[in-house]
Amino acid sequence: MNIAVAQSGGPTSAINASLAGVFKAARSSGKIETIYGCLNGIEGVIKDRMIDLGKAIPDDEAAELLKRTPSTALGSCRYKLPDADSQPQVYEDILSCLEKHGVGAFFYIGGNDSMDTVAKLSAYFKEKGSDIKVVGVPKTIDNDLPCTDHTPGFGSAAKYVAVTTQEIIRDSSVYALESVTIIEVMGRHAGWLTASTCVLRANGEIAPHLIYLPECEFSAQRFLDDIREQQKKHKAVIIAVSEGVQLKDSKCLRSDKLDVFGHQQLSGIGKTLEELVRSEIGCKVRSIELNVMQRCSSHIASATDLDEAELIGAKAVEYALDGKSGIMMVFEREKGEKYSVNISCADAALVANKEQFFPMEWVNDEHNNVKDEAIGYFLPLIQGEVEIKMNNGMPVHFKLDM
Amino acid sequence: MNIAVAQSGGPTSAINASLAGVFKAARSSGKIETIYGCLNGIEGVIKDRMIDLGKAIPDDEAAELLKRTPSTALGSCRYKLPDADSQPQVYEDILSCLEKHGVGAFFYIGGNDSMDTVAKLSAYFKEKGSDIKVVGVPKTIDNDLPCTDHTPGFGSAAKYVAVTTQEIIRDSSVYALESVTIIEVMGRHAGWLTASTCVLRANGEIAPHLIYLPECEFSAQRFLDDIREQQKKHKAVIIAVSEGVQLKDSKCLRSDKLDVFGHQQLSGIGKTLEELVRSEIGCKVRSIELNVMQRCSSHIASATDLDEAELIGAKAVEYALDGKSGIMMVFEREKGEKYSVNISCADAALVANKEQFFPMEWVNDEHNNVKDEAIGYFLPLIQGEVEIKMNNGMPVHFKLDM
Repeated sequence: MNIAVAQSGGPTSAINASLAGVFKAARSSGKIETIYGCLNGIEGVIKDRMIDLGKAIPDDEAAELLKRTPSTALGSCRYKLPDADSQPQVYEDILSCLEKHGVGAFFYIGGNDSMDTVAKLSAYFKEKGSDIKVVGVPKTIDNDLPCTDHTPGFGSAAKYVAVTTQEIIRDSSVYALESVTIIEVMGRHAGWLTASTCVLRANGEIAPHLIYLPECEFSAQRFLDDIREQQKKHKAVIIAVSEGVQLKDSKCLRSDKLDVFGHQQLSGIGKTLEELVRSEIGCKVRSIELNVMQRCSSHIASATDLDEAELIGAKAVEYALDGKSGIMMVFEREKGEKYSVNISCADAALVANKEQFFPMEWVNDEHNNVKDEAIGYFLPLIQGEVEIKMNNGMPVHFKLDM
Repeated sequence: MNIAVAQSGGPTSAINASLAGVFKAARSSGKIETIYGCLNGIEGVIKDRMIDLGKAIPDDEAAELLKRTPSTALGSCRYKLPDADSQPQVYEDILSCLEKHGVGAFFYIGGNDSMDTVAKLSAYFKEKGSDIKVVGVPKTIDNDLPCTDHTPGFGSAAKYVAVTTQEIIRDSSVYALESVTIIEVMGRHAGWLTASTCVLRANGEIAPHLIYLPECEFSAQRFLDDIREQQKKHKAVIIAVSEGVQLKDSKCLRSDKLDVFGHQQLSGIGKTLEELVRSEIGCKVRSIELNVMQRCSSHIASATDLDEAELIGAKAVEYALDGKSGIMMVFEREKGEKYSVNISCADAALVANKEQFFPMEWVNDEHNNVKDEAIGYFLPLIQGEVEIKMNNGMPVHFKLDM
């Protein structure tokens, strides 16, 4: 039989590692002939834009390069699969494309929107009597998928954010005057990535002195009070704030543009808070948006993250060959001092469109910082550096020869 | 005799490497007893805030850590030295502090504002019959100092910008729809850092498709035309733009706040152009400000840059012991295929308050890109990776124990 694999949603530094994992496990299984890559996610199946990955990834060196290359080598999409009842043609196109190419299993690497696609497609195939398995491989820097201890892509994003925040702390502390530095971190509704800056305490940093998550109510007045309190102890106050933090008691306006999924397009909480500090406190203030670098800075990826991302992709192939469908692969963290994970699976419908929030028991009473208990959760995920192949002083990236 | 060293201006990834160079050369010269570090630049001399670097940097391991740590370990300042005629007290304070500590040579690591301090102080000391030597060690990520082939700090900034731009190219090219990505790079008046993104061509990248420098007149209308032209060839158009680019033929307003030196505080050209593209072209558009990460991301520093920064600091000690004063150390690039530099010196007064711009002969006729000839200039400066000491998955930084 043949298989097909696609990547979806926002890019990460680890989504290609999962692709490499699916590819290598399929190739070495001895049970799969052609491994198709679908271009631009599920749209590549609908439009029959499939490539032979065996040709695109000719050898182990190419697979290793793919693993270390950020973003989605096959392209991505933000396509929300409609209900089968309302638009049956889309489902028929997908089934016919996969059948035409003799595909027995379809792997979808993505976030909670993608798991909705996995759940819907596997249900549809069963209903139609098709034997095609559909298996989801998780990825998101937001770490907000239910049923799994953490998600591939998160560890590398957290490592980038920690390393960069530490460098910003050095940069922000050089002048002999009061200053406030606001670092805006990705995370619409879940504050995992912003909270992960607490790992810097393991290296003796006190900053960020304040951490604000979208899980907590945010008050502009309390924010200003918090800063004034910190300024009694620190000349340079460093703040990490989630992009999703909502300013409610201020006249500052937020953008209300919606993206294609109906998510509110968030940008600018950092700039907004910067203006607030400038007008109300009046000290030197700067805001820094870590922007897409959080999800694509593979030059400082977490080796643990890339290895796990590859492994969970490989396990997905095993589960599909074992007859599983409509599932998302998950990590289970084992109890004990030493960090280790088991890989198993959960019903994709339990993940679809749902979000796992940062636990409130790890947030301090003042809702302006994260407790030390969270450090032990985050720290193992950012361990290890990835050896990067360099050329001319810059990393070499895998590129599809199209 | 004793010496004193201070750091000034905006931080870089290499300014501590120059400090390490001064320290190590002074220690091994056999002619210097105490090496003082002045806290917060020349302000540390005025206020007699000096520390014994021999105690702060107890061994070679600490010196190596210092070399790899971004920003200024001694703190910095933005203090503009007044003329000796108008405020003689400041000069008397400086001289008395240095004499009190038996300082025979003062080293100032900084940019063109700092070289103004070097020129003024050395002239004052000569006039007063003092034998204290004053030697400037260049640093700036802007690469805009005259009399030198390039400046320490620039290579690491350029390496960060190249590596990050390449990752942003991957990130920005995943969707099957037209998009524009605008990367805002530091550089008030000189476009060296923005121009340096052309090195990506050496790794087979076509992007950035458009590069805009402050040295050229910028027209919003031509900018939009340039994008439309590129969209005929590329789905995802990537643009590098200097923060200093001035929008003249548009109603978009720029901030006119001035910093302490009277420089216009620039921010937001990226955001402004993003809004322009959104309203006039209407495609998906994003702007990314590389912000302070350009000057402090030492985890991806250029080994060539840090080694040269250390070396030029060491040479400064040699020149001071040789009786030179009122100078800035400079790099001279040797002719020939293989890259190598000589270190010599120039009159600090020739550098003070002056800027070296990106050469117009390396800008294309359309003023929207950089010619291939510039690649050979930039490429050697970003070569080599620095081995970083890691702890808990994060770099270990040198910190003053104060």
